[in-house]
Amino acid sequence: MIQKTMDLSSGKVKIKIGNKIISEEPIFFAGPCSVEDIDTMRKIAKELKALGVDVLRGGAYKPRTSPYDFQGLKGEGLEILRTIKKEFQMIISTEILDVRDIEKVMDVVDIIQIGSRNMYNYVLLEEAGKSGKPIILKRGFSATVNEWLGAAEYIMNVGNEQVILCERGIRTFETTTRNTLDLNSVAYLKKYSRLPVFVDPSHGTGVRDLVKPMALSGVMAGADGLLIETHVEPEEASSDSQQTIDMKTLGEIMKKTNEIWRLR
Amino acid sequence: MIQKTMDLSSGKVKIKIGNKIISEEPIFFAGPCSVEDIDTMRKIAKELKALGVDVLRGGAYKPRTSPYDFQGLKGEGLEILRTIKKEFQMIISTEILDVRDIEKVMDVVDIIQIGSRNMYNYVLLEEAGKSGKPIILKRGFSATVNEWLGAAEYIMNVGNEQVILCERGIRTFETTTRNTLDLNSVAYLKKYSRLPVFVDPSHGTGVRDLVKPMALSGVMAGADGLLIETHVEPEEASSDSQQTIDMKTLGEIMKKTNEIWRLR
Amino acid sequence: MIQKTMDLSSGKVKIKIGNKIISEEPIFFAGPCSVEDIDTMRKIAKELKALGVDVLRGGAYKPRTSPYDFQGLKGEGLEILRTIKKEFQMIISTEILDVRDIEKVMDVVDIIQIGSRNMYNYVLLEEAGKSGKPIILKRGFSATVNEWLGAAEYIMNVGNEQVILCERGIRTFETTTRNTLDLNSVAYLKKYSRLPVFVDPSHGTGVRDLVKPMALSGVMAGADGLLIETHVEPEEASSDSQQTIDMKTLGEIMKKTNEIWRLR
Amino acid sequence: MIQKTMDLSSGKVKIKIGNKIISEEPIFFAGPCSVEDIDTMRKIAKELKALGVDVLRGGAYKPRTSPYDFQGLKGEGLEILRTIKKEFQMIISTEILDVRDIEKVMDVVDIIQIGSRNMYNYVLLEEAGKSGKPIILKRGFSATVNEWLGAAEYIMNVGNEQVILCERGIRTFETTTRNTLDLNSVAYLKKYSRLPVFVDPSHGTGVRDLVKPMALSGVMAGADGLLIETHVEPEEASSDSQQTIDMKTLGEIMKKTNEIWRLR
Repeated sequence: MIQKTMDLSSGKVKIKIGNKIISEEPIFFAGPCSVEDIDTMRKIAKELKALGVDVLRGGAYKPRTSPYDFQGLKGEGLEILRTIKKEFQMIISTEILDVRDIEKVMDVVDIIQIGSRNMYNYVLLEEAGKSGKPIILKRGFSATVNEWLGAAEYIMNVGNEQVILCERGIRTFETTTRNTLDLNSVAYLKKYSRLPVFVDPSHGTGVRDLVKPMALSGVMAGADGLLIETHVEPEEASSDSQQTIDMKTLGEIMKKTNEIWRLR
Repeated sequence: MIQKTMDLSSGKVKIKIGNKIISEEPIFFAGPCSVEDIDTMRKIAKELKALGVDVLRGGAYKPRTSPYDFQGLKGEGLEILRTIKKEFQMIISTEILDVRDIEKVMDVVDIIQIGSRNMYNYVLLEEAGKSGKPIILKRGFSATVNEWLGAAEYIMNVGNEQVILCERGIRTFETTTRNTLDLNSVAYLKKYSRLPVFVDPSHGTGVRDLVKPMALSGVMAGADGLLIETHVEPEEASSDSQQTIDMKTLGEIMKKTNEIWRLR
Repeated sequence: MIQKTMDLSSGKVKIKIGNKIISEEPIFFAGPCSVEDIDTMRKIAKELKALGVDVLRGGAYKPRTSPYDFQGLKGEGLEILRTIKKEFQMIISTEILDVRDIEKVMDVVDIIQIGSRNMYNYVLLEEAGKSGKPIILKRGFSATVNEWLGAAEYIMNVGNEQVILCERGIRTFETTTRNTLDLNSVAYLKKYSRLPVFVDPSHGTGVRDLVKPMALSGVMAGADGLLIETHVEPEEASSDSQQTIDMKTLGEIMKKTNEIWRLR
Repeated sequence: MIQKTMDLSSGKVKIKIGNKIISEEPIFFAGPCSVEDIDTMRKIAKELKALGVDVLRGGAYKPRTSPYDFQGLKGEGLEILRTIKKEFQMIISTEILDVRDIEKVMDVVDIIQIGSRNMYNYVLLEEAGKSGKPIILKRGFSATVNEWLGAAEYIMNVGNEQVILCERGIRTFETTTRNTLDLNSVAYLKKYSRLPVFVDPSHGTGVRDLVKPMALSGVMAGADGLLIETHVEPEEASSDSQQTIDMKTLGEIMKKTNEIWRLR
């Protein structure tokens, strides 16, 4: 059933992020959970750029369990990302929720994120795929590896091979941590699929103190990149504050990742 | 957080299906998993009508794990439903996957189904809600009761109170049955929420022989209605054959449901 | 692999509880979670007897997550059960945790309970089986149906066919209720195994208000009997108070069960 | 509730394995799933010793889902371990299932293993604890971290502080791998508990090819040691063959572990 994602005879899919090729060196996506106001975003972007982060990520459209919770800055958030992109010359990734938004984001967003809640939204997958942009496809929090590959297949089937899988934790009986980061799936996919695999230790743990060890653990399981919620003042983040790390910790993770990268 | 769904001081939500009011007498949704060809649909509709089934249900648009699997008859399936609706004067329910399809289905579909995979697709929930039609909202197969109510809240928040919750089994470690039918949630929601609750024992078990006992078990847990995959020739159904029952079994379930209804 | 439990050609296993044969009429096990002091136990036993409850159940030895929590009255609890048994002529069921206790309980306990935590304790299963007494085997809270049957097979393999399976809820991602009562498993086992199946809606829900609907739901799924935590003053129960019901509710459940029993 | 395991003010628990102190350098437990015949065990022991493995592990008593499956060599397996211990001067670890076996194993077994199925068997935990020997306590495959610590607390509460926690994968909806290795729990316990934590990537994945990356991933999450099913001829192992690795792969894991140990 899973044809394009697992046909190893076609070779591993190669995706470029700026001047880097995924899997040849570690790739870092970082930034706040939600896009913050322009001043805060400038501070964040400046520091991420200084650290050598590859992609600035932040949510303009936020899917939330309750309609009464903060839903992101939406269009305004998109304009902030546009400004940051221009001022800092950074590669931008953000999540889209609505097929009707794709056109709007085309000139701002370089890498489209499909979030965990929308992994089974095949209409959105196909339309995002048709944009021709690289897609970072988060695993549904209760999706099997097979279903996740099926979702990737929907994107590849409309002619877009640039799919990055991102493990972000699955829902289990355990509640000590927000999710259970399934690094088995990373090792499995690196061996048996053609696609690059990233790890998101922020959602994967939900606990700030566990982000660093689990980021490095993810790298050792085979991850090609990391997606980490980072803020200049984590306690002030407008969402997911408890799992957001500061710039210093991000710098340590990047340094350690480079040290262990060749030892895998 | 959950305001409109659980504010019992506003009274239980009343929804009419034809001449019946949900919760005053049992309601039955039945039909094939996918819309079949017009001749088969005529045979099915004739028998369902004779049994007194309230709503004919069948999928024109089918979300499938793989893009290479049968995706439903789509537009053609919708036209078949339109013909059946006119010929048999039946109330029609079908699933929608794409906000751009809502306008198309407005004059065919009486009750819009939001499927399990789309329970977190808040964009779709809001647009479906704006149609003003009753919505049957299937529980995400890994959604907590709280998240399910949050999804209903998105619909109610755009001004549409006509939401029917439908328990259809959750994903657990157990694989003897396709899903684990969570009837605790039915008893819980009947007690603490304002919304009617249906049970889908077809997806809830995935096993034809278990549909009847689990339909009745669902009624006893408090269900206001049942949604059952039924076909004149279950073995020939174009999808979900192994969990589809025949007309005779459906008739038995309806008879038994009426017998136990007042004993709850 | 599962030979004795599922060999339907050998016929259904028949087990007598007092003058009743399981599956011919409903069987009720009731009593407090833990054995209480002798005065409270007398009050409870008197009321259960008056209601026609078949078996008084209560824990003398309580397995608890923490060693610092109440572990049951142990030997003293056993002596209280002995007194109650003699004074009220009731059939007694209690859980054992230690193979070295079996001899001690032989003349007090009529039906040995193996609790959920010990379903995989094959040493205990075999030794309990060798006692020749009927065993009520609770499902491990994360055991598959196949593993549960494997556990029953250990008992049957030492020559004791008198095994009652008891579904008591499984551990899933859902936390609204304490466990997820898996009634699919009841319908499945009634159809495909030789053993009687009971339902414990107390542990299965963990919520007092849900015990009645889920008890009746369990009966409709096919249960041969119910095991319900009941107390004269539920709020005062020394453990599991929040899921313990009063005598009046138990009486209603028994009455309703008799009404729906023949309608299955 | 969790007093002795998490009271960080008492300092981390120090356990010696031979001349090493756990957490100061990596510790390796390796050997076959089940104790094999004496000739095979000699070959295995010789190679493990040459690699510098700290502890030879192998099961004499095997808890199996079905009573008709191989249950281990039992007493004979214990005698084989005794011989190997003497001939190779190796530290021995094996699982016990029955409190009545503890005395028998006292002079053979240096480190008692409590297996996943028996994590809730508090009687066994206490009796094993009273032996005074170090205990390697595998996590129940559906145990929360809190329950796992509760189990450790039972051992510590009888006066034995020498408890090694061992993460071996939890049961989730995912079936691509045998279990889901929960490395979040390792990072969490290293930070918040006093006890050393090992990882078992053999049961944690169930897939030979994934043992090496997940062993290293576990080390990076903070593991103090590894427990790996290893055999001179993995395909010939009498149980768990599909997850057993060969000596060469074990050697690579040990080498890599030493390289990344100081980079954590």
